[in-house]
Amino acid sequence: MKIAIAGAGALGSRFGYMLHQAGNEVILIDNWVDHIQAIREHGLKMTIDAETFTAEIPIITPQEITSDQTVDLVIVFTKAMQLDQMIQDIKPIMNDDTDILCLLNGIGHEDIIAKYIDAKNIFIGNTMWTASLVGPGHSKSFGSGSINLQNLGEGQEIEAKKIAACLSEAGLNARFTDNVHATIYLKACVNGTMNGLCTILDVDMATFGETNQAHEIVTTIVKEFAAVAAHENIELNVDDAVAFIEKCYDRQTIGDHYPSMHQDLIRNHRMTEIDYINGAISRKGQKYGVATPYCDFLTQLIHVKENIVLK
Amino acid sequence: MKIAIAGAGALGSRFGYMLHQAGNEVILIDNWVDHIQAIREHGLKMTIDAETFTAEIPIITPQEITSDQTVDLVIVFTKAMQLDQMIQDIKPIMNDDTDILCLLNGIGHEDIIAKYIDAKNIFIGNTMWTASLVGPGHSKSFGSGSINLQNLGEGQEIEAKKIAACLSEAGLNARFTDNVHATIYLKACVNGTMNGLCTILDVDMATFGETNQAHEIVTTIVKEFAAVAAHENIELNVDDAVAFIEKCYDRQTIGDHYPSMHQDLIRNHRMTEIDYINGAISRKGQKYGVATPYCDFLTQLIHVKENIVLK
Repeated sequence: MKIAIAGAGALGSRFGYMLHQAGNEVILIDNWVDHIQAIREHGLKMTIDAETFTAEIPIITPQEITSDQTVDLVIVFTKAMQLDQMIQDIKPIMNDDTDILCLLNGIGHEDIIAKYIDAKNIFIGNTMWTASLVGPGHSKSFGSGSINLQNLGEGQEIEAKKIAACLSEAGLNARFTDNVHATIYLKACVNGTMNGLCTILDVDMATFGETNQAHEIVTTIVKEFAAVAAHENIELNVDDAVAFIEKCYDRQTIGDHYPSMHQDLIRNHRMTEIDYINGAISRKGQKYGVATPYCDFLTQLIHVKENIVLK
Repeated sequence: MKIAIAGAGALGSRFGYMLHQAGNEVILIDNWVDHIQAIREHGLKMTIDAETFTAEIPIITPQEITSDQTVDLVIVFTKAMQLDQMIQDIKPIMNDDTDILCLLNGIGHEDIIAKYIDAKNIFIGNTMWTASLVGPGHSKSFGSGSINLQNLGEGQEIEAKKIAACLSEAGLNARFTDNVHATIYLKACVNGTMNGLCTILDVDMATFGETNQAHEIVTTIVKEFAAVAAHENIELNVDDAVAFIEKCYDRQTIGDHYPSMHQDLIRNHRMTEIDYINGAISRKGQKYGVATPYCDFLTQLIHVKENIVLK
């Protein structure tokens, strides 16, 4: 398959590397000059668990796309706030048959993609794979992961399964589901609690979880997600979601970690994706007439912190 | 007048000093051993603007009260969470004619006092006087202030005016009002926004105020205070209260300051009074069937921070 990775950061690089190793024709698309230069000069370096590999994979900016480069599949791995621009920029690499797969964290990305791409070509999902950047041209990751994905357009189940098969052949452990929105909402609940709360409170997940108020705060936020989801005919069981989130407190696994939003904002002074997590719930809540005050307030507090930190 | 100051910290010491200088028979009551010892050995030191004065004023613990010490007036200046215990402890210093004046920040203190004291003897208000402790036995303060006070019991207006006159004679600039609850709520709005928000966000008031979200957050919180106040027949004008709060952002006056709650929790690792400010609105909201999600969430976040900082 000819596959473009639109947004070849930490996780995009990991996906690109694995799909390339499995024999696909992969092209990376990114805007970060140092990263592009490093990959062009030294290849893409990929550290998986303890071993480091190198692969020669072409990388271009969206502006460098030529009309003879159309691909079968685009996988988008931008930051949420870059998605809209990226979809517009990579149009030349897509033809009427090019599928696009979005595995970004957060809610409502399909609405952005659908502004530019026919629904029959849109596939959405989420992934438990993780990765981080060592530096330009070098991504690293630990452990394993999985992918759930589904077609957005009607009758495209077979195409969705074909994409899942291609990913699984590359070791990415993908599966087709007919209920991907529930898994997207479930993952958004994790991000919609741990990310914002640990960022505002400046703590790791376990330390937050060990406070007397954690359970009630998390439950209140999840109830807002569930109330919005219900308006989209997505059933989100509050107790199950809360129990799933509370696994993050385990110091034996990931409890000692600060969530990615804390790393983005507090450590690296970057904008957060809050508008695509709690902020998305606030917007949808307004649309459906559902009160979402905890999501509203948490979104505002993170934006205040952005205002201060990025000043 | 024979006056006891129950809780002779920074502000209690200032009141005690001024009332003593005006010729009243003042006794200080406190539980802090180092403070008591310093005042007994060296007198109460009081720095007002640039000058430092010393006054010999008796100071005792509540346990040292003897039955021949009953006073005309008790002014309570404890931390909010110590009020209940202090009222119980100082009962021996009160007889049926002893009045009690509460000028504490926050909402609902009269309900605690009324558990032990007849409403006719209870007077409530608020003050713009401030002070801080230099160390044991030494309080300092800048600038001037004022006091609003009112009787809680029916028909006690004359008694309230008598207390106001006594305070004003000592230079404390007190006035009787027939609408003290409105001024208490207004001051509580300042504390209910600046204190909790600047503590959670770890910023001074001006820095918070300069963010894009400040106005909307403050307005939402004030609306919750106003909705609760309305159930107590207290009219709180939201626009006026917000404008009053936003004066705190002025760097020419107090904008560069961190509110007292930030000093308590972040700097000095002490419990906050959040339960008597936003927490009081949450409890009253629940009682009246008024939703107060911003106050609920802010109270919870401050308690999480207490859990973490005081661990």
